[in-house]
Amino acid sequence: MSPIVETASIVGLGLMGGSLAHDLAARGVRVRAYDVDERQLEDAICSGVVSERLRDDLQDIAADVVVIAVPVDAAAHVLARAAPFVGEAGLITDLGSTKASIVRAARDLGLSSRFVGSHPMSGDHRSGWPAARRGLFVDARVYLCPASEEAMAAASLATRLWTELGAAPEIIAPDEHDRRLAWASHLPHVAAASLALAMSSAGVARGELGPGGRDTTRLAGSSPELWTAIAVENAAELDAALASAEREIASFRRALARGDAGEVRRRFAAARQWFEV
Amino acid sequence: MSPIVETASIVGLGLMGGSLAHDLAARGVRVRAYDVDERQLEDAICSGVVSERLRDDLQDIAADVVVIAVPVDAAAHVLARAAPFVGEAGLITDLGSTKASIVRAARDLGLSSRFVGSHPMSGDHRSGWPAARRGLFVDARVYLCPASEEAMAAASLATRLWTELGAAPEIIAPDEHDRRLAWASHLPHVAAASLALAMSSAGVARGELGPGGRDTTRLAGSSPELWTAIAVENAAELDAALASAEREIASFRRALARGDAGEVRRRFAAARQWFEV
Repeated sequence: MSPIVETASIVGLGLMGGSLAHDLAARGVRVRAYDVDERQLEDAICSGVVSERLRDDLQDIAADVVVIAVPVDAAAHVLARAAPFVGEAGLITDLGSTKASIVRAARDLGLSSRFVGSHPMSGDHRSGWPAARRGLFVDARVYLCPASEEAMAAASLATRLWTELGAAPEIIAPDEHDRRLAWASHLPHVAAASLALAMSSAGVARGELGPGGRDTTRLAGSSPELWTAIAVENAAELDAALASAEREIASFRRALARGDAGEVRRRFAAARQWFEV
Repeated sequence: MSPIVETASIVGLGLMGGSLAHDLAARGVRVRAYDVDERQLEDAICSGVVSERLRDDLQDIAADVVVIAVPVDAAAHVLARAAPFVGEAGLITDLGSTKASIVRAARDLGLSSRFVGSHPMSGDHRSGWPAARRGLFVDARVYLCPASEEAMAAASLATRLWTELGAAPEIIAPDEHDRRLAWASHLPHVAAASLALAMSSAGVARGELGPGGRDTTRLAGSSPELWTAIAVENAAELDAALASAEREIASFRRALARGDAGEVRRRFAAARQWFEV
């Protein structure tokens, strides 16, 4: 089987970009890459996953597919640097957890007809090239945000690429993406960090937790840099989600304070109903 | 190898009591049991794990080890019914997630020298006999709360039993147990339920979550009945933990509202430090 594309240029070989490099290389795509971390880039080349290094000015970035796989607070800047050199690329995408700002940047750079943002829901609390691996995207939902209605061919290529990697692509508008992800992803990250800080303040170590408590706080191990960028980027939507979580905790406290077991049970039951649907 | 004890009577064949029955039976202990759910009791007997059913008035409960494995809001009541009939039992224990009230009940019933409360940290969001299984306690911390200093022999037997099942027993005072567990276990349960309710209110389904969000909300699938009893029982300690989590979320919100990326990063970094220790 011939690969869907022949070449891909990837900027950023962290968990997401690195795993994509693994998957594409395994399918015969020639992967060219750049990473600010020289050591990560060397490792990726030594492993044979990356065929060729990109120049740090990205002037040789032209390829069938161009992927910006850097933290969300750097993505628009890197895209701007790459834009003049993308050549005939049929698809330009990113892999960030927020989509409104990068899609806006792509439009401003005149890439509306070829940019389709990607957000694979396959994160992990680990990060960097050492955590990257083949198969990360299998069974993962991947949100796709075309920069405009003219990006039909690019969206089609993105859909085929992600499907080929075992993922489930789904097209969504960037604002709607950021609103929903504030709840589905950014809220759990901040909540896990908040639980970690609360436990830390009480002198309770993670080693004291059972399997349930460990799962609940696993995301506290995520990269502070990546998640600061995401939270700041999506602050307005995230605030609504955090305020809602605060209210739900406060409601539990009120019911417990007045010894209202019926209300506590009703709340736990509603939570389980959500869990089971 | 001869078993540590010959007979054990277990009241309640849920996840905890049922799993203990599996483990003891596999080691040659003759397990006698009762469950209010006739169907669960029948299944446990058919499977060969339980050798004999106990009368529902518990008058035949005498055995080397007596285990009360019912929800914490029923445990003191069941212990009171069983107390006159425990005979020469060398260890009387329970498996609940709170310890102060059951230890107090044991003292009031004159069982101070033989009661040692147990809390295995091996919970799961599933419950009931169908979820019970061999090996549940392997590598789990098990908190042991002797009812008095006279309970030395019983504490020793409890330590040997749990160690034999692969667990790591640790003796702790009941009040200290309840205080610590409010943070390490009860807080994550209420937090997961609160996230579930928040997401539900925003129309975000669990199927939209990635692996991290799913882990963070897994405990929302726990039994509403069991966890209502635990939360109500430990309401005072739990309130302090919930208030702390609320404050941590509020601090994230304030830092995000003023666009203070440095403070957001500092908070995520402190959370990861707790995670990594």
